[in-house]
Amino acid sequence: MTILEQQRPLPTPIPGVEHATWAGGAQGLSQLSVWRQSLAAGAATPPHRHDCDEVVMCLSGTGEVHLGGAVQRFDADTTVVLPRGVTHQLFNVGNEPLELIAVLGSSPAGTWLPDGEALELPWPT
Amino acid sequence: MTILEQQRPLPTPIPGVEHATWAGGAQGLSQLSVWRQSLAAGAATPPHRHDCDEVVMCLSGTGEVHLGGAVQRFDADTTVVLPRGVTHQLFNVGNEPLELIAVLGSSPAGTWLPDGEALELPWPT
Repeated sequence: MTILEQQRPLPTPIPGVEHATWAGGAQGLSQLSVWRQSLAAGAATPPHRHDCDEVVMCLSGTGEVHLGGAVQRFDADTTVVLPRGVTHQLFNVGNEPLELIAVLGSSPAGTWLPDGEALELPWPT
Repeated sequence: MTILEQQRPLPTPIPGVEHATWAGGAQGLSQLSVWRQSLAAGAATPPHRHDCDEVVMCLSGTGEVHLGGAVQRFDADTTVVLPRGVTHQLFNVGNEPLELIAVLGSSPAGTWLPDGEALELPWPT
């Protein structure tokens, strides 16, 4: 077993997106990747899809998920379940950072842009 | 997509173990199951193993993992990575509730007792 301190998210090359990988391939996992992310006010993820299940737990802030033409708002103490293989995008639509834990059902977690190009994630999965 | 309120853990038939399933098969997931658990002071899980990767995030309290003869302590803001298929047991060794989020890399999450008997979990995965 491995016991790790939960690292604070740090800036990434994606504007307004901070990230820390809490668990993943570096700990020998193949079925799970656990990410802690913070989106600044007004920031968004790129639109993307994964080849695995994803669950996002909101710790604080106010977000929106855009998925298949639908828009749904979420906030602290809610959980967003995202279907595998469907393009989605998360926005911080509040005035405070949007603090998230995202868990993915694979490591590495394959990630694609809407045009089918692989998105090389700037963090370890 | 599905957006859910994060439910508080409720008592289960396992003494001192409260549980809420935050995401799993009921939301169409097959690769992830997300559990919120609270162990009362002095309580423990049964010794058990899963057929999938597991990551446990500690929100508060003080716990111990017993695994393969090793004992490791963990507390708030640490993450425990548990290898697939290895029997382990979590104890609350503090005076306050041990508050956890456990994510498993499968839904359903097959669970076995040390003697090889399947453990029928008293909650939905």
